[in-house]
Amino acid sequence: MTEKIHNTTRALKADINQYQMDHLKLSASVSSLELFRNNQTSIKCDPKQEVAFTAAVTSLSTTWNSGTLMFNVVLTNVGNGYNPSTGVFTSPGEGTYVFYVSALEYLQQYLGLEIVLNNVPKVRLIGESAAAYQTGTNMVVLNLQKGDSVWVRHHRGKGYYSHSIPVTTFSGFLLPS
Amino acid sequence: MTEKIHNTTRALKADINQYQMDHLKLSASVSSLELFRNNQTSIKCDPKQEVAFTAAVTSLSTTWNSGTLMFNVVLTNVGNGYNPSTGVFTSPGEGTYVFYVSALEYLQQYLGLEIVLNNVPKVRLIGESAAAYQTGTNMVVLNLQKGDSVWVRHHRGKGYYSHSIPVTTFSGFLLPS
Amino acid sequence: MTEKIHNTTRALKADINQYQMDHLKLSASVSSLELFRNNQTSIKCDPKQEVAFTAAVTSLSTTWNSGTLMFNVVLTNVGNGYNPSTGVFTSPGEGTYVFYVSALEYLQQYLGLEIVLNNVPKVRLIGESAAAYQTGTNMVVLNLQKGDSVWVRHHRGKGYYSHSIPVTTFSGFLLPS
Repeated sequence: MTEKIHNTTRALKADINQYQMDHLKLSASVSSLELFRNNQTSIKCDPKQEVAFTAAVTSLSTTWNSGTLMFNVVLTNVGNGYNPSTGVFTSPGEGTYVFYVSALEYLQQYLGLEIVLNNVPKVRLIGESAAAYQTGTNMVVLNLQKGDSVWVRHHRGKGYYSHSIPVTTFSGFLLPS
Repeated sequence: MTEKIHNTTRALKADINQYQMDHLKLSASVSSLELFRNNQTSIKCDPKQEVAFTAAVTSLSTTWNSGTLMFNVVLTNVGNGYNPSTGVFTSPGEGTYVFYVSALEYLQQYLGLEIVLNNVPKVRLIGESAAAYQTGTNMVVLNLQKGDSVWVRHHRGKGYYSHSIPVTTFSGFLLPS
Repeated sequence: MTEKIHNTTRALKADINQYQMDHLKLSASVSSLELFRNNQTSIKCDPKQEVAFTAAVTSLSTTWNSGTLMFNVVLTNVGNGYNPSTGVFTSPGEGTYVFYVSALEYLQQYLGLEIVLNNVPKVRLIGESAAAYQTGTNMVVLNLQKGDSVWVRHHRGKGYYSHSIPVTTFSGFLLPS
């Protein structure tokens, strides 16, 4: 009887050793999975910002000749980067952005505009005075840091043209990464 | 002998209690990982739609003066949102979209067009009649629901200009979120 | 005493059987999680390319009349797809891309340009000669394979106009999928 019990406890000991081994392997797998999950979570939890706007002027000016073109009517403003009371887009986060302007000159008075980043002009658009109501337009891709400012400013000429359904507009959007 | 076996079973009991504890901790880790996996899967399985098109007219019109501008030639149509037989883009899913039109007026006949969303004009473009073949162009960022319709319609003037390699085009794309 | 030990080993045996069962269930869960992790990793490890550029000419030409328009000044070149010494954008990876050109004609000499993909013209833009310094502009969405080439080439006319802050520009960007 004692011999039989002795054998049984030996077998139990062997079983437990086996489970100890299995358990260690499983623990290593779980640790690896947890590391993966944690790395994943940090990627996933980055707030994926969506930023995209179109602003416009809905009436013409015969006299405007300096400073920021105030696109005072907001058509779309996902992420609220564009401020219609200042005319300035402020980057809500680092990334690659696309900006676009289309503008009509007023009655051969010439309209030169610039897309500026933190007061540095990047590209220019020209509605020339050789014919009335010519469209000037341009696009620029910019790498922005959080807080960078982009706006449209006067370069040359006087006034601009638009309609209640706007022809002179300013758009921008973040390229999601 | 009995005493020795007694000690052995006590030790085995202690080992088993230890593995029971380890096992519970491991089970909790696995449950947490499975929850993560399930949430992940639901994120990953969202069909990430890609939607982007360019359509064009490849011949001019001297008379077109109402309704939808039918960009009948499709250059690209990822997601099949644009229908060349109706000229209408129908949103395959909710999201932020960018639309763009460039169009040339025909021989000082003026060309005013509008990008419309569900029949509401959003922006206008003008190829003015002051000089021949002026380009009108505009862009607009729009938040669309699934099923919303966007197209280009006549506003004013007559005809439009294009070539077999098109100059008058309509593009749109979804900004991935 | 022996009877008591006998009962204890029986109980231990039952416990071990229970943990064996639990362990098998846990192992199956971990295997499933590892499979998920491995699939995830292959998705995550796809290098999510960011590609976006704006290049420009910063001086005018009165004579340019053939071949590639060399936008020799790079404003932005995320992913280094655009080569300013050749004027050619080479796709760093498969995907849906947007290309855009805005260009001014020089003093009624006409400026016809084409956005070409692997030497096939896709869209054209025209700065007409009816009035001086007219803007021609166009956009096209293209599906590219890795290694595909896109550039802007001469179609008709002579020269182009720009400023040190450029008005004649070429932009492109990958729509992230």
